[in-house]
Amino acid sequence: MGDTALYVSYNTVHKLVQSLSERLLASGFEADVIVAIGSGGFIPARIMKTFINRPIYAVGISYYGVDNKHRESPTKIQWIDEVQSQLRGKKVLLIDEVDDSRVTLAYCIGELLNYEPEEIAVLVLHNKRKEKDVEFPIEIKRYYAGVETDDVWIKYPWDAVDIDEHTAKEKA
Amino acid sequence: MGDTALYVSYNTVHKLVQSLSERLLASGFEADVIVAIGSGGFIPARIMKTFINRPIYAVGISYYGVDNKHRESPTKIQWIDEVQSQLRGKKVLLIDEVDDSRVTLAYCIGELLNYEPEEIAVLVLHNKRKEKDVEFPIEIKRYYAGVETDDVWIKYPWDAVDIDEHTAKEKA
Repeated sequence: MGDTALYVSYNTVHKLVQSLSERLLASGFEADVIVAIGSGGFIPARIMKTFINRPIYAVGISYYGVDNKHRESPTKIQWIDEVQSQLRGKKVLLIDEVDDSRVTLAYCIGELLNYEPEEIAVLVLHNKRKEKDVEFPIEIKRYYAGVETDDVWIKYPWDAVDIDEHTAKEKA
Repeated sequence: MGDTALYVSYNTVHKLVQSLSERLLASGFEADVIVAIGSGGFIPARIMKTFINRPIYAVGISYYGVDNKHRESPTKIQWIDEVQSQLRGKKVLLIDEVDDSRVTLAYCIGELLNYEPEEIAVLVLHNKRKEKDVEFPIEIKRYYAGVETDDVWIKYPWDAVDIDEHTAKEKA
């Protein structure tokens, strides 16, 4: 995709999360807990914690096999276990970096709904405007995307091998 | 502590992790899995994944109560559970952001040793040169600190309320 890649710096990610936290508050959603989808959601979730000061639970989901090819469905790497009872009746803020095909998010939501939270709100840095492979369950009433993008390759800073070059490319 | 605070930007954190990954490789430690101590270890661990490409398990440890005062001992917020068997016989790279009193790290190590890993290596961005409240168990043979600092207040970027100001302060 070459030139169509979207480079995002750390400071931009940070500001995106900060502005999302303001939208969250303005919308009246007061999360009890944050659930980070690993590994893409770890960094946005940790930044969100600064602004809404809620505990983070991490779940590890992989949609790729060892050969880096898509599996048929996402696989749990780590899951909330002894704490799953802590989600019952709670308002959960589920965070991932990007809403691409929506498969991982929908899978996670389906699993988390088993724990009978009061509500799950979904928050991502970027939502790609494209046909999604699956839809969210009807239980999802709140969805916050920092930026709506075309279907481009989003280059996040944590994947950079040369972070100075990466940061400069955002501005170019 | 005012002027003695050490401001660290995201790009500096990124480069610190990158250089630590090179030291890891040079030392011959080939981790099988990364264990991130939440929430401070989430961001360094996610960056490390870029360089050593290993799965991340997250554990949540809190040393503070609801009143923000130290508890008597660290408390588990989230723990590896169904995956604990996956640590048996494995080389574990345990990551946190800072080695301050050493209490949280030592607590985590003590718990993880129950799972009989082959080895646990400890990696932190910063080690504060100060008398530690506890020592590591003798099983810890590898310890990697990105930077040795005095006992100053380290200001990590993910805690910044104004990330531009924070980034500028690092350079000042």
